[in-house]
Amino acid sequence: MAKKKYNAFYAQSGGVTAVINATACGVIETARASKNIGKVYAGKNGIIGALREELIDTSKESKKDIAGLKFTPSGAFGSCRHKLKSIEENKAEYERLIEVFKAHDIRYFFYNGGGDSQDTAHKVSQLSETMGYPITCIGIPKTVDNDLPITDNCPGFGSVAKYVAVSIREAAFDVKSMAETSTKVFVMEVMGRHAGWIAAAGGLACEKEGDAPHIILFPEIAFNKEKFLKKVDRTVKKFGYCAIVVSEGTAYKDGTFLADAGTVDAFGHKQLGGVAPEVANMIKDELGYKYHWAVSDYLQRAARHIASATDVDQAYAMGKAAVEFADAGKNAVMPTIVRKNTKKYSWTVGEAKLADVANVEKMMPRSYITRDGFGITEECRQYLQPLIQGESYPPYKNGLPQYVELKNELVKKKLKTKFKI
Amino acid sequence: MAKKKYNAFYAQSGGVTAVINATACGVIETARASKNIGKVYAGKNGIIGALREELIDTSKESKKDIAGLKFTPSGAFGSCRHKLKSIEENKAEYERLIEVFKAHDIRYFFYNGGGDSQDTAHKVSQLSETMGYPITCIGIPKTVDNDLPITDNCPGFGSVAKYVAVSIREAAFDVKSMAETSTKVFVMEVMGRHAGWIAAAGGLACEKEGDAPHIILFPEIAFNKEKFLKKVDRTVKKFGYCAIVVSEGTAYKDGTFLADAGTVDAFGHKQLGGVAPEVANMIKDELGYKYHWAVSDYLQRAARHIASATDVDQAYAMGKAAVEFADAGKNAVMPTIVRKNTKKYSWTVGEAKLADVANVEKMMPRSYITRDGFGITEECRQYLQPLIQGESYPPYKNGLPQYVELKNELVKKKLKTKFKI
Repeated sequence: MAKKKYNAFYAQSGGVTAVINATACGVIETARASKNIGKVYAGKNGIIGALREELIDTSKESKKDIAGLKFTPSGAFGSCRHKLKSIEENKAEYERLIEVFKAHDIRYFFYNGGGDSQDTAHKVSQLSETMGYPITCIGIPKTVDNDLPITDNCPGFGSVAKYVAVSIREAAFDVKSMAETSTKVFVMEVMGRHAGWIAAAGGLACEKEGDAPHIILFPEIAFNKEKFLKKVDRTVKKFGYCAIVVSEGTAYKDGTFLADAGTVDAFGHKQLGGVAPEVANMIKDELGYKYHWAVSDYLQRAARHIASATDVDQAYAMGKAAVEFADAGKNAVMPTIVRKNTKKYSWTVGEAKLADVANVEKMMPRSYITRDGFGITEECRQYLQPLIQGESYPPYKNGLPQYVELKNELVKKKLKTKFKI
Repeated sequence: MAKKKYNAFYAQSGGVTAVINATACGVIETARASKNIGKVYAGKNGIIGALREELIDTSKESKKDIAGLKFTPSGAFGSCRHKLKSIEENKAEYERLIEVFKAHDIRYFFYNGGGDSQDTAHKVSQLSETMGYPITCIGIPKTVDNDLPITDNCPGFGSVAKYVAVSIREAAFDVKSMAETSTKVFVMEVMGRHAGWIAAAGGLACEKEGDAPHIILFPEIAFNKEKFLKKVDRTVKKFGYCAIVVSEGTAYKDGTFLADAGTVDAFGHKQLGGVAPEVANMIKDELGYKYHWAVSDYLQRAARHIASATDVDQAYAMGKAAVEFADAGKNAVMPTIVRKNTKKYSWTVGEAKLADVANVEKMMPRSYITRDGFGITEECRQYLQPLIQGESYPPYKNGLPQYVELKNELVKKKLKTKFKI
């Protein structure tokens, strides 16, 4: 008699990326071939889908559409920013999860997210022990912030890194060609509230002296206005223009974000966001240079059209490995990317305990930032460069990328109770 | 005895684009094979280079580098925003041009720009008549604003159009997947101070009901706050989120730009630019939805990595045709793109008189905008769609596009006088 198969729950968590669906593709394609796993149910809008018993039946999706996830940005099943509290604090949520899992024969839990999500995954992995429900729980790394520990890098980061490096190079070419009579300073704001990984990636565009970006502002380095303006002025005088990448998390020594520097609108409301215009105005006021600024916001993390092929491959591999781990009877672990000690970049899949991953933030080492605090070191470049390698272009129709939209059919509810989030 | 060859002057003018260098490539490659034209001297920073006698000798550039211009954004020789006054107003500038042209055996003038530039080209074309200097002058169209008359469209526009359509599609996918618990409204600001062509291109991403963008704000349509907010609210309630493309030139009925709506910084200075945050704050204040906004600024017009293949082909063809026109003894004309009356999009090269092009702005027809003022019509789509067709990817190395930087060697000056701009 064939062994009974149990279903799997897969959820996307936190901010989505250009390649989190490639991970979903890896999970679903691998699970479809598994001897132990039945159907994969995806949470509608992440973990909330489990709590609300809104389960998407991925078996209703065609092979072609699932394959198409590999080149579709965003979260195909919806994501959310809901963090489960500890079992002591909110036992009801865990009881509800078990109730839903039981009702739908779910004994595998795949949770695809960043630091907070791995913490949730870790809590769920303990349900066997703490609440007697047999569950196999595998975390899957994802975050544009690149701040998960143990893994060499995080799926999602390589593509936003590539977008930022390509964009600042292109915009700087533009500024350079106009600088004699027009814009002399260009400021591009990128994501990264706590860690400067994304801003650092902009530095890859600078391959020789004089190349843009000339200045990078990191959250790790306290902003020194005087020093910064001096550097801007020197750069314009030397190269004719100055291109700047600024992390949204750039802050003064006392921790105040530059973007919170007191700007108010006509109604006296605090102006929200925009460290780029703040920095640009500062330059205009003190140095008088004509400027332009850009805030790429979601464009950077959704830019599947310029995704890193390395990132796409790794994102898929993490999904595949997660299912293989579950198939092998592992629990409470997360696949990782391990950089091999080879001359030419190569990597393999490793394994980390969720307990070691949960709630640990990997910051940029100080040795990755130049002594003056405005650029990246060679060591940083060696680390970042391989992650943006290769172009993985989506298919196009009518001049536009053809991203997949799934049917997302919900499984019929079996529970009578509703759950209030 | 071979006919004496005369040199050509080529200048890039006004805001640069992702494909103006493809036009330069067309000019130089075609001129190199011409029986009449000697060397092509490019103006360093546009027309200023002629006035200052700063002429770049393009014959010093390798065949490979010139070919590389086809996939390099920005202005490889530098551009400027200097508009020549009329001959009556500033005869000195025209005398200087003739002096420089004479000193360097220049009798061909190729001027690559938008409306203002074609006006300059027109004035220069009259030099034979007005000042007795034998010059052949050909204008070459270029502008992301797509506002030149007679030509069906302008090189540079197709690529920014593709960037905007791709970007709003990608960002909207992102927002949609997070909307249940997070951001519900996304606002993307695009260029276009007078005409809404670029904003309209965002509309191409909407291929079926519910697709983003849900709202486009055009400079052509007076902004009605109440009507706008109602539409945002309805859209969020119906589709769960709302994606908006806003033209930087969007204005109230009285002509006040939204971006000039009185926002001041902490020092009481007028906050410069940023209609996207203005609109986003408006939504937050009145409807309370969580929002994100992006300002792509130069990124959009420099985005060679996602250039339209149609645009690249047309940009090159305009440069080639300009030289062919000169070779054929034409003067005071500009090559145009002529849309052929075929079922499948096709085009050919036409010809317009500079006199008819100079200082005429082509606005978007009202019939291209939906009745409610928030979207594009099928007629508009039929016009725009072919212009973003095809992907023309640059070569990559180390994960980054390899854009060409020319040597830009200056010709030895022959004049003793300097000219003050």
